[in-house]
Amino acid sequence: MKRVLAAEAGKHVGEEILLRGWVHRVRKLGQVSFLLLRDRSGVVQTVIETGGWDIPDELTNEAVVAIRGKVGEDKRAPGGIEVRVQKREGLEVISSSLEVSPIEINKKIDLLKTNLDTVLAFRPLSLRNPDIRAIFKVQAEIIRAFREFLIQEDFTEIQTPKIVATGTEGGSQLFPVQYFERQAYLAQSPQFYKQIMVGSGFERVFEVGHAYRAEEHNTARHLNEYVSLDLEMGFIEDEEDIMQMETRLLHFMFEHLRSTCEAELRLYKAKIPCFQEIPQITLAEAKEILKSQYKKDLGGAKDLDPEGERLICRHMSKNTGEELVYITAYPTEKRPFYTMPCPDHPELTKSFDLLYRGEEITTGGQRIHSYHQLVENMKKFALRAEDFDFYLQTFKQGMPPHGGLAIGAERVTKQLLNLSNIREASLFPRDRTRISP
Amino acid sequence: MKRVLAAEAGKHVGEEILLRGWVHRVRKLGQVSFLLLRDRSGVVQTVIETGGWDIPDELTNEAVVAIRGKVGEDKRAPGGIEVRVQKREGLEVISSSLEVSPIEINKKIDLLKTNLDTVLAFRPLSLRNPDIRAIFKVQAEIIRAFREFLIQEDFTEIQTPKIVATGTEGGSQLFPVQYFERQAYLAQSPQFYKQIMVGSGFERVFEVGHAYRAEEHNTARHLNEYVSLDLEMGFIEDEEDIMQMETRLLHFMFEHLRSTCEAELRLYKAKIPCFQEIPQITLAEAKEILKSQYKKDLGGAKDLDPEGERLICRHMSKNTGEELVYITAYPTEKRPFYTMPCPDHPELTKSFDLLYRGEEITTGGQRIHSYHQLVENMKKFALRAEDFDFYLQTFKQGMPPHGGLAIGAERVTKQLLNLSNIREASLFPRDRTRISP
Repeated sequence: MKRVLAAEAGKHVGEEILLRGWVHRVRKLGQVSFLLLRDRSGVVQTVIETGGWDIPDELTNEAVVAIRGKVGEDKRAPGGIEVRVQKREGLEVISSSLEVSPIEINKKIDLLKTNLDTVLAFRPLSLRNPDIRAIFKVQAEIIRAFREFLIQEDFTEIQTPKIVATGTEGGSQLFPVQYFERQAYLAQSPQFYKQIMVGSGFERVFEVGHAYRAEEHNTARHLNEYVSLDLEMGFIEDEEDIMQMETRLLHFMFEHLRSTCEAELRLYKAKIPCFQEIPQITLAEAKEILKSQYKKDLGGAKDLDPEGERLICRHMSKNTGEELVYITAYPTEKRPFYTMPCPDHPELTKSFDLLYRGEEITTGGQRIHSYHQLVENMKKFALRAEDFDFYLQTFKQGMPPHGGLAIGAERVTKQLLNLSNIREASLFPRDRTRISP
Repeated sequence: MKRVLAAEAGKHVGEEILLRGWVHRVRKLGQVSFLLLRDRSGVVQTVIETGGWDIPDELTNEAVVAIRGKVGEDKRAPGGIEVRVQKREGLEVISSSLEVSPIEINKKIDLLKTNLDTVLAFRPLSLRNPDIRAIFKVQAEIIRAFREFLIQEDFTEIQTPKIVATGTEGGSQLFPVQYFERQAYLAQSPQFYKQIMVGSGFERVFEVGHAYRAEEHNTARHLNEYVSLDLEMGFIEDEEDIMQMETRLLHFMFEHLRSTCEAELRLYKAKIPCFQEIPQITLAEAKEILKSQYKKDLGGAKDLDPEGERLICRHMSKNTGEELVYITAYPTEKRPFYTMPCPDHPELTKSFDLLYRGEEITTGGQRIHSYHQLVENMKKFALRAEDFDFYLQTFKQGMPPHGGLAIGAERVTKQLLNLSNIREASLFPRDRTRISP
């Protein structure tokens, strides 16, 4: 007999079907037990009538069971149907649960009441909670949409090494790896490799891969290991082409989520942003808005602080109705050495951040493509060209004008689903103190 | 004027078009120069007639150029068309090449003549060679097909950490990472995490991610960092379900390659395997064949050696015409502790390898799903249950019978394209001595 998924049971009214899954909740009421069965598709109610036989003791929450019964309609049941079991053979415990889970699996987890540390310490169990698992269905679809859009746009997927000899930004915030007798590091980003792959002639490349930052701080918006959605493309006019590509990418991604994650979005009361264009303001303009509208004076700061990001988004949302805004023209000294300076204002760069509901989700921009300009800039940043020998190989041959961006997968997930801590958007987060589970 | 790709030029006969790309090869013959322009789509011939003006000196191989010219038919040109430039404005050098590449970019790289070490030392340049780049187009499509098939089969994509506290096989062959004040390791495989995610209720999960093996040997078939195509699924009968899934997956993958990589496959004279079923033999049967057919006695060995794998594939290919063969029933002591033993023969496991053209490309099998059996097995393997605390959480709640497999992305690429060294199938390989480029 072929297994039927919980969500498909309603198509078999009047028929006997075989279900397999977990006991989401069981209530034993004398001769009748109500059992909610959970599988990858959802939850369905089963009713077990035990005239003349007993429900086995192992039939507890989280046991894995097979159930054979007849599908009937019942308006009181969730989804309007229930599966009725009358024979002892209709119920088989495949794998029992040895103890009561320390984490609520069949109720809403209220993170205000349940400590996030507890949720993470028992991650294998908290992920069984359908509300928590839903976050990762959404994340899988975000990543899928990223790829599908870029494949349509003639990008090629690449896989680049995460064990590297030098960092992209010159050595700070790197995790050291003992690589046999040598010291290596975990890659902060695939930056050099994706630029090399533009130069290889693929022109347009993307990667979904882990990135590592040995940042000491422990905040609600940083992970030390995260999933970076990277793209890089050649033959651009300037950074405007990169922002246009991202705007279209997000459009595609949000439409994809609307059609594939309806229930999950509803669960998290997540509103999909509607936009045609994403507004752009320069960092200088953003600082001016903070000063005039919110009496927040960032002085000579070269970037927004977290509060500044929140306020700018609040301002934009109020004035334009948009939840997304590009911040452009960041100062040269706050961007990596490979960032293209503005020809007329070399103290500013052709780079941008994208803020979404108060938090940065992307950094991107045009890169330097001239060998000489790149080597000059390395000097300004006190980097030694010989440390970047293999990277520079690419620029000694012709390189087209190019640029790219990186989106933090957990950041987008968090902002979209209104999560309060980025750890909730990572299956098994790595932070200042956590390397397990 | 909108850019036209080289491969699309033939659709514009009689029109003036704009091309952008690299100078693949230029020959200057007095008043006429022949320039092959290469972009992400291919190569097209351009003819530059310089009556009254000179070709700029920077127009060398690998310079990046924009070319405006009229498309004409010419049977002698590759593809039957050429783009004719008559005006000086029709030729712009966007980015020049500063030196002659130490690697041949516009010729076939004969790996018998060019040392692989040289090819890898100048990887950013050797990847510009279209023949070499083609390998990674094929690899991107292998990975894409893996995902597309599994999404169709209701699998969910997961992203699991590569920084871990303990290894899956108990501590050997791990790269240490200095994680702030603690010692961590790079993950050998996502094994524990994918099993946890089966238990989470996703039931069917897959991951495309890096895996790390600190193996000392330096062979033509091993990388120390590689891309692992992992899947894991619940509610199986036994390992047969996993093999069936892989057979269908490979079917899908090979058909996908046939339709997306025709030119690349032709270039490498790669024959796509045709099969309905993939034959299965036990390890004991394989050893018997080696002994009787090839006078190779493996004695008490618990696995095939590389020569054994090659001979078995040769034998199967001769006798069944198939290039793929599952080897089953590996001894318990040679498989990891979580491998399901055969109930009637506990010295053997419900696991398998898949050999393809003489080399293993997959290891898989059914896993133990009972907590008690798992803890018992850990003892047999001299592992301490307390080191696997978070993993065991999953098994204290109900776990369905489940299993999975891992395919080495570079291995499949190598075998399909008849490459002689696995380093050729990795963009930036990491081996015993190489952490750069």
